[in-house]
Amino acid sequence: MSRIYLDNAATTPLDPQVMEAMLPYLTTHFGNPSSIYSFGRETRLAVENARKTVARIVKASPGEIFFTSGGTESDNMAIMAAVEDLGCRHIITSSIEHHAVVHTIEHLQKKLNVQVSFVSVKPNGHIDLDQLASLVAGSSQRVLVSLMHANNEIGNLLDIERVGAICKEHGAIFHSDTVQTLGHYPLDFSKKWIHFATGASHKFHGPKGVGVLYVSDELTVQPIIHGGGQERNMRAGTENIYGIVGFAKALELADQQLEKDRAHILSLKLYMAEALQQQVPELLFNGDWNGESLYTVLNVSFPRNEKTEMLLMALDMQGICVSGGSACSSGADVGSHVIRALRSTPSVPIRFSFSKYNTKEQIDEVLRVLAGLLN
Amino acid sequence: MSRIYLDNAATTPLDPQVMEAMLPYLTTHFGNPSSIYSFGRETRLAVENARKTVARIVKASPGEIFFTSGGTESDNMAIMAAVEDLGCRHIITSSIEHHAVVHTIEHLQKKLNVQVSFVSVKPNGHIDLDQLASLVAGSSQRVLVSLMHANNEIGNLLDIERVGAICKEHGAIFHSDTVQTLGHYPLDFSKKWIHFATGASHKFHGPKGVGVLYVSDELTVQPIIHGGGQERNMRAGTENIYGIVGFAKALELADQQLEKDRAHILSLKLYMAEALQQQVPELLFNGDWNGESLYTVLNVSFPRNEKTEMLLMALDMQGICVSGGSACSSGADVGSHVIRALRSTPSVPIRFSFSKYNTKEQIDEVLRVLAGLLN
Repeated sequence: MSRIYLDNAATTPLDPQVMEAMLPYLTTHFGNPSSIYSFGRETRLAVENARKTVARIVKASPGEIFFTSGGTESDNMAIMAAVEDLGCRHIITSSIEHHAVVHTIEHLQKKLNVQVSFVSVKPNGHIDLDQLASLVAGSSQRVLVSLMHANNEIGNLLDIERVGAICKEHGAIFHSDTVQTLGHYPLDFSKKWIHFATGASHKFHGPKGVGVLYVSDELTVQPIIHGGGQERNMRAGTENIYGIVGFAKALELADQQLEKDRAHILSLKLYMAEALQQQVPELLFNGDWNGESLYTVLNVSFPRNEKTEMLLMALDMQGICVSGGSACSSGADVGSHVIRALRSTPSVPIRFSFSKYNTKEQIDEVLRVLAGLLN
Repeated sequence: MSRIYLDNAATTPLDPQVMEAMLPYLTTHFGNPSSIYSFGRETRLAVENARKTVARIVKASPGEIFFTSGGTESDNMAIMAAVEDLGCRHIITSSIEHHAVVHTIEHLQKKLNVQVSFVSVKPNGHIDLDQLASLVAGSSQRVLVSLMHANNEIGNLLDIERVGAICKEHGAIFHSDTVQTLGHYPLDFSKKWIHFATGASHKFHGPKGVGVLYVSDELTVQPIIHGGGQERNMRAGTENIYGIVGFAKALELADQQLEKDRAHILSLKLYMAEALQQQVPELLFNGDWNGESLYTVLNVSFPRNEKTEMLLMALDMQGICVSGGSACSSGADVGSHVIRALRSTPSVPIRFSFSKYNTKEQIDEVLRVLAGLLN
C-alpha cells in the first residue's frame, strides 16, 4: 500500500539534496569543529558557513544565529533568557501556543513565581492585538511577549511586525516561535522588531535534531546548557555538524523555491478545502483558513459521530497520514488544547498539512477514501 | 597527503555499519515518533528499540535511559536535577573534570549559592578517594559527588564503584561523566551504585548530536528542556531519530567488539609510549598512563622549547591530527586546565588518542615525523 503523507506540519521528509549536502560530514569530514587541525577546520568552516547562510536568509547577522538541538530547545532558551537574564517578571502569551512555550512558561511560573497573562484568542483563532497592547501597556513589570508566528495546529498567522511594534513601544521583550514559518515565509529580522525567533529544519525538509535560535544583538543573554565554548559560549556541546549543514541547505533550498512551492501547496490546500466543503456540508473549518493562514495547513472539524470517531485510525489503515492536532496529540484521546480553546462543542478535528512533495492526485485519493469512510 | 587521525578522544569517524543503520531513517522512515499513524509508529519503535539496546548493554532498565542532544546536555541535566530536584546543596568535584561539569557547577554556585568543594588530585592524576570519603562524611548538607569515570585528557580511570559505595554510605548522590568509557569499557549499572551517568556516541564511532543520560529509577527528577511529552516527559523536542538509531547501533558494535578493539588499541598505545620514551628521553607522561588509564589515550609532555612550541601545528601540516588536551583547547594558547592542575612547570602536552581504525604503520609514521620535527 502506498502511503499518502499529509502531516507535514509535524515533520517533513528530508530533501535528497539536503541529504547529499550532509553526506560528506557523515563520512570523511568528521573532525571536531573545536580542534585546530585540518579535520577540525573543515567542519568549523562548514558550521560557520551554515550560520552565514541562515543569517543571510533571515536578514540577521551571523552573530545573532545560534544552532541548537531543535525548535523546543530554542524556545526554552529564549524564554528562560528573557526571565533570568533580561529581568522579565511578567509573561504575556496565549492559550494556543506550542507546548514548548506553554510548558516552559508554566515551569517558570511555578519555579520563579513569574506573572503570566493570557491574551484573548478570537473564535477565528486570531490573537486580540488590541487587548495585547493594553496588557503590555498596563504591566507594572518588564514584560516578555511570547506569541507564535503561525499556529502549528490551525495555521493562523500572527502579524508579528505589529506585535513587535507594540512591544517596542513599551520596552517589552518579544519572542516568537517561528517554527512553522521559517522556510515557508520570508522572514526579515533586520529591522529589529523581534528579540528571539526559533526554527527547526525538519519542518522544511531538513534534518531532525537541529534548530536555530535568533537572538537580537541588542541583547546579552546566557546559555541554558553549560560547558565548552561552542556557539560563542551560548550552547555547549560538540556540534551536530551534519544537522547544522543540513539545516542551512534545507533553508537555502526552501528560500530559493519559496514562491514556486507556495503556489503549488496553496493550490492543494484550496482544492482540498473546496472539495471537502462540497463533500461534507456540515464540516467546520478551524482557524482563519482562507484568510491570514499558513498555506501548508488546513484544519477541519468533522461532526462527532460513530463514523468520524475513529477517522484518524481508519485513514491510517488506508495509508493516509494526518493528525488530530500537533504531533504530540495526533489521534490521542487527550485531544488538542488549541481546538479546545476555540470550540466548545465536541468535534473530530483533523489537520491536513501539505508539502512540495504532495500532488493533486494524492488529494483526490484522500477525498475518495474519506467519502468511503463517511458514507 | 593522507591524514593520520589520533584525536579519537575528541571525536571519532562514523562506523559505516552505523551509517547503514541510520540511512533508512534519513530517507524513507521519517515520521514523527509522536504521531500514531504508520509513519510515526515505525520511528517510535526504532527509538524504543534503541533505548532497549542501550539499557541492555549498561545493564539498566529502558526506563532509566534518556536520549539527549549529547554528553554535555546529559551532564547539565544530571547536575541540575541533583541540585534543583534532589536537594543537593553541596557539590564535591575535582579540578580536572570536563567543562560540561565544571561550568555547570560554576553556574549553579553563582546562581543558587550551592557550596562547592574540590577533592585533591594526586600528581599522577588520580582522585584522592580517602579525602573524598572524609569530605562526603563531613558535609552537613546533602551532597552531589560529580567525578568523571575517565579523564578525557590524561586518561586516568576512576574506581567509580568505590566512589559509588562512598556515596551510598553517606546518602550522597553520585554523577559520573562516563563519556570516555561508554562504548570502551563494560558498564554495569544494575547494582545501583550510581545515580547519573552520561554518554555521547561520537566517542565510539556513532553520530554527533546525540547523547544519553542514565538516571537511576530510584530517583524522580525534572527535565531541563520543557515542551512535548517526548522521552517520557524528561526531554521535550522531536526526537533526533537517526541520531538515536545510530547511537544504539554504535554502542552495540562497540560492545560486541570490545575485547578485540581493546587489545588492538592498547597495543598501539603501549607501542607508541615505548617508542616515544626511547626517542625523546626527556619526555614526561601525564597521568597514570601505564596503570589505571584509558587504553585509548596517551598524554605526554614535551619540554617547552622552540622546536616543541608549535608542535601541534607542525604535526597538522604533516597531516597528523592530535590535540593539546580536550577539543576545546586543542592547540589553543589557553592551554589545558587539567594539565595545569597536575604540572606546574611549563611543558607542551600532547594527547594522542587511538581508535580501532588506527594501525601500527600510522604510529610509525607519526614517530618518524616527530623525529624529524624534534631533531
